[in-house]
Amino acid sequence: MVRVRDMRNDGGMSKVVLDMSLSVDGFVAGPDDTPGQGLGADGEVLHDWLAGGGDDRTSLRPTDAPGALVIDEVLQTGAVLVGRRTFELAAGWGGDHHGGVAIFVLTRNPPDEPAPGSATYVTDIESAVARAKEAAGDRDILLHGASAAQALLRAGLVDELQLHLVPVLLGQGRRLFDDLPPDHVELELVRELQGPGVLHLRYRLRKEAG
Amino acid sequence: MVRVRDMRNDGGMSKVVLDMSLSVDGFVAGPDDTPGQGLGADGEVLHDWLAGGGDDRTSLRPTDAPGALVIDEVLQTGAVLVGRRTFELAAGWGGDHHGGVAIFVLTRNPPDEPAPGSATYVTDIESAVARAKEAAGDRDILLHGASAAQALLRAGLVDELQLHLVPVLLGQGRRLFDDLPPDHVELELVRELQGPGVLHLRYRLRKEAG
Repeated sequence: MVRVRDMRNDGGMSKVVLDMSLSVDGFVAGPDDTPGQGLGADGEVLHDWLAGGGDDRTSLRPTDAPGALVIDEVLQTGAVLVGRRTFELAAGWGGDHHGGVAIFVLTRNPPDEPAPGSATYVTDIESAVARAKEAAGDRDILLHGASAAQALLRAGLVDELQLHLVPVLLGQGRRLFDDLPPDHVELELVRELQGPGVLHLRYRLRKEAG
Repeated sequence: MVRVRDMRNDGGMSKVVLDMSLSVDGFVAGPDDTPGQGLGADGEVLHDWLAGGGDDRTSLRPTDAPGALVIDEVLQTGAVLVGRRTFELAAGWGGDHHGGVAIFVLTRNPPDEPAPGSATYVTDIESAVARAKEAAGDRDILLHGASAAQALLRAGLVDELQLHLVPVLLGQGRRLFDDLPPDHVELELVRELQGPGVLHLRYRLRKEAG
């Protein structure tokens, strides 16, 4: 079953969209996620729905329509927000995640060396989001990585979740949702797309009236 | 070697079906799940998709077609397997979960008092499943509760997952998938149904060829 809702009817305001593949038991990587093994031991199954591979993001575009759509949405984001750990596990994407858009790397202790390519180290979450929004213009912001996701969720700075739910139990590994306060965040399922070996679930975070 | 078992074409063999409502962040209850507050602090949202309430299972039947279908499946199961904690949080369902079917309550230390109604305390998982299968005949077995789920998953005794994914992040609470070994369990999404405020995802566990 596929239900699509038009998410572009919000006056073009930039949204922070957490985009992650995760197992049915909630892991974004298996145990021992280290450089060269960014998805952890035997964690590659989480990216089986992505085609190709390598450094070029566009080579990951699946051939099925739902998979192509969700990857195209990623490639259309105007900035990337990521935690340093995820950034380094991915070797900084060679300094270019996609299309040369600005990459803001959250870290407590920026290294002396500047970040490669279009990446910048940022220590403050609020200013990271502000700078990403400025860089993205009316395009969305791609949020990636479990730690960055948790930091922004705690700060109430996430607008949508794009979860690629992979039909596997990993048993152990790195959880996407962890160390969050016991505050309920109501979600609204705005789209679900079923691709081969993956369910793409898009949720909007309901915010308190400001 | 992994093969797919066709559960719908296996001569009516009884399946063990884990049936749980859980939040998008993987919790089946909020913090402090105690008697009288079985879903934990503010955890009732996980059962919002169920109508009515009270001791009578049939009063929980939602009016939407997907919700009615999944509840009818629960009511058609021929035995219940549950952990003692969940059983006691639910006050033992008054000794009758539904239709008087046998309830097998997993516990390490059975109390001196016999279990109420059609319930029986069982200490051994394998024999609990065997007895439940005998009681259920060709009907499925309802597996309920996080601890029992984990015990049976560890033992490779679960056939299907029926997850009612509720659009909320609870942040903290009791996880459905926890303390499992780092052994991948491949799943196959065999059905997804979208009801109001809930996504019913049914997965079949792929088993090694025997």
